[in-house]
Amino acid sequence: MEFKSLAQLTEEITPLNSAAMKAAGEHLDRLTKPPGSLGKLEALAVKLSGISGEMQPSFSKRTVVVMAADHGVCEEGVSAFPAEVTPQMVLNFLAGGAAVNVLARQASAEVICVDIGVNAELTHPNLLQRKLRYGTANMAKGPAMSREEAAAAILVGANVVATETERGAGLFVTGEMGIGNTTASAALMSSLTGYSPLESVGRGTGITDERLEHKRKVVARALEVNSPDAEDPLDVLSKVGGLEIAGMTGIILGAAALRSPVVIDGFISTVAALVAVRLAPAAANYMIASHVSHEQGHRQLLESMKLTPMLDLDMRLGEGTGGVLALHLVDAACQIMSEMATFESAGVSDSAASEELSR
Amino acid sequence: MEFKSLAQLTEEITPLNSAAMKAAGEHLDRLTKPPGSLGKLEALAVKLSGISGEMQPSFSKRTVVVMAADHGVCEEGVSAFPAEVTPQMVLNFLAGGAAVNVLARQASAEVICVDIGVNAELTHPNLLQRKLRYGTANMAKGPAMSREEAAAAILVGANVVATETERGAGLFVTGEMGIGNTTASAALMSSLTGYSPLESVGRGTGITDERLEHKRKVVARALEVNSPDAEDPLDVLSKVGGLEIAGMTGIILGAAALRSPVVIDGFISTVAALVAVRLAPAAANYMIASHVSHEQGHRQLLESMKLTPMLDLDMRLGEGTGGVLALHLVDAACQIMSEMATFESAGVSDSAASEELSR
Repeated sequence: MEFKSLAQLTEEITPLNSAAMKAAGEHLDRLTKPPGSLGKLEALAVKLSGISGEMQPSFSKRTVVVMAADHGVCEEGVSAFPAEVTPQMVLNFLAGGAAVNVLARQASAEVICVDIGVNAELTHPNLLQRKLRYGTANMAKGPAMSREEAAAAILVGANVVATETERGAGLFVTGEMGIGNTTASAALMSSLTGYSPLESVGRGTGITDERLEHKRKVVARALEVNSPDAEDPLDVLSKVGGLEIAGMTGIILGAAALRSPVVIDGFISTVAALVAVRLAPAAANYMIASHVSHEQGHRQLLESMKLTPMLDLDMRLGEGTGGVLALHLVDAACQIMSEMATFESAGVSDSAASEELSR
Repeated sequence: MEFKSLAQLTEEITPLNSAAMKAAGEHLDRLTKPPGSLGKLEALAVKLSGISGEMQPSFSKRTVVVMAADHGVCEEGVSAFPAEVTPQMVLNFLAGGAAVNVLARQASAEVICVDIGVNAELTHPNLLQRKLRYGTANMAKGPAMSREEAAAAILVGANVVATETERGAGLFVTGEMGIGNTTASAALMSSLTGYSPLESVGRGTGITDERLEHKRKVVARALEVNSPDAEDPLDVLSKVGGLEIAGMTGIILGAAALRSPVVIDGFISTVAALVAVRLAPAAANYMIASHVSHEQGHRQLLESMKLTPMLDLDMRLGEGTGGVLALHLVDAACQIMSEMATFESAGVSDSAASEELSR
């Protein structure tokens, strides 16, 4: 299948299977443990049942989609790394040497790298060529891209999911590469949530105090120059977003439309998720928050979206690294559902359920 | 080898290999990522190098030791579950149906179950029979056990590690089963740290407000009746501790003495770790904190010990479940060290390191 328009994509997103969720919750309470004692793993198991419609799902084929693009705002000097690192890292992903590759191998996940807007000619047999333009324009001087380009980038992401779903993938992880993309993400967060650049702008790859101060001013200027309309997510995305961020929004919406769980990585991925829920609130049900990153603003952003991360590793690398680590927890939730003994099967006494708290 | 006395055990614990840690840190900074951007995984990698003496260690054979024992204080009505659940769950561990079994299989870890003080006759070919007594005495009325019994229980744990090390195990996870053991753990925490029972006592397996209030009073009474000497960890452990808690203290000290990392599970395991560092401060270097549990007091206890958990799952099950989940993160840290490309090998531009923050 192919998603042909944003409207078609968002209309495909339906509620979770509540009967499967109820059955999953009841099964969890029969397992040999105090009710609720596996915490977020239990909530995750219930959500996975609601998404898959199965009480004991498994997700053997999972795919990390790394969206890569460049940012015109880099000419303002917002990053510790030069923009040339974006294409260099794309080649590193394709060679299997980046952190996300290592962690994906550990979690038996495939890494797919998409050039959705890298500012360089890139050719590699395993690179998905979906370049919409050679990086965004400098948002500190005008819109990063057009509204049509932002919508097209979302459809690129959704259609990567559609293709991979046809190839058997049943779970997705959002990943990205794009020097300058914490700057765009901070602008998106501030515009969509009202948090000031003081709260949304962080150190990204690791900038000095002085450059951090400058980065905040650049974000403030981008918001002033473009006046994005917070009520119109596509307007915000096009004016102060990025091609890979829009692509990830598409990954999330595509996964939700095709009833696959989608694991959200760090700050940039969560901003893409925020855009996704503003476009289609029901998409939130398909999201799995993986980790809370070290990047300023991520914790607040997760809280404002009522997403509860499972890992707290002070990571700030992106690429999908935190998301891939959470696959072990997805597997754990599934295996708890399919492998644990029940009170009855194991001959273990239940608590006096009527007296005690159940959760 | 066999540990014959507590003094011999604690004297065997030596500092980490600082040369290996330095080499590991330098290697991490050559990998294709901003310096420090893998957060706690980097700190973990450095610690694992310091423990193993190798820059690229791996821990293929890892063992979860589940120490099981009963608590006389259960007659005060402190738990949602009856004490008979302890032996029932031991049989569930041995049959492979408990949560820790499921999660250990997922993480390729072996589960060993030790009867160090269950109040029932238990026979099973795979059960390690190390029973020191049929549960502790009721600490609300007098000492839970004698000083000699507490020391013997520590040696049981350390010698399980010694035996398993001879069988090839190179990493340990602490686990436990013992209805009533959050009550003993809270008493240990309060006695050793000065936190009041209001702070240390939680809901354990899930008790009502009324029973929580009662449990706090029971802990306060146990501390009053026994007046444990906070400067004498063995005195505290024997008066208000538990046989499985002492056994876990032994697991930790044994692992440290034999230079193996030891992953600390939840509240009860962390209390055992607290006793271990009070007996031998250098043991702290060998500990890996896994998760922060839902149990009241765990977060404060971890902070007071400067242990930083990696998982935040609201779990409160014990058994070693959170510890086993952290094995995926241990593996991730190891594989980052051995599989990631360097800036040089991948042809990626480094940041202007002199200008920017390095960590």
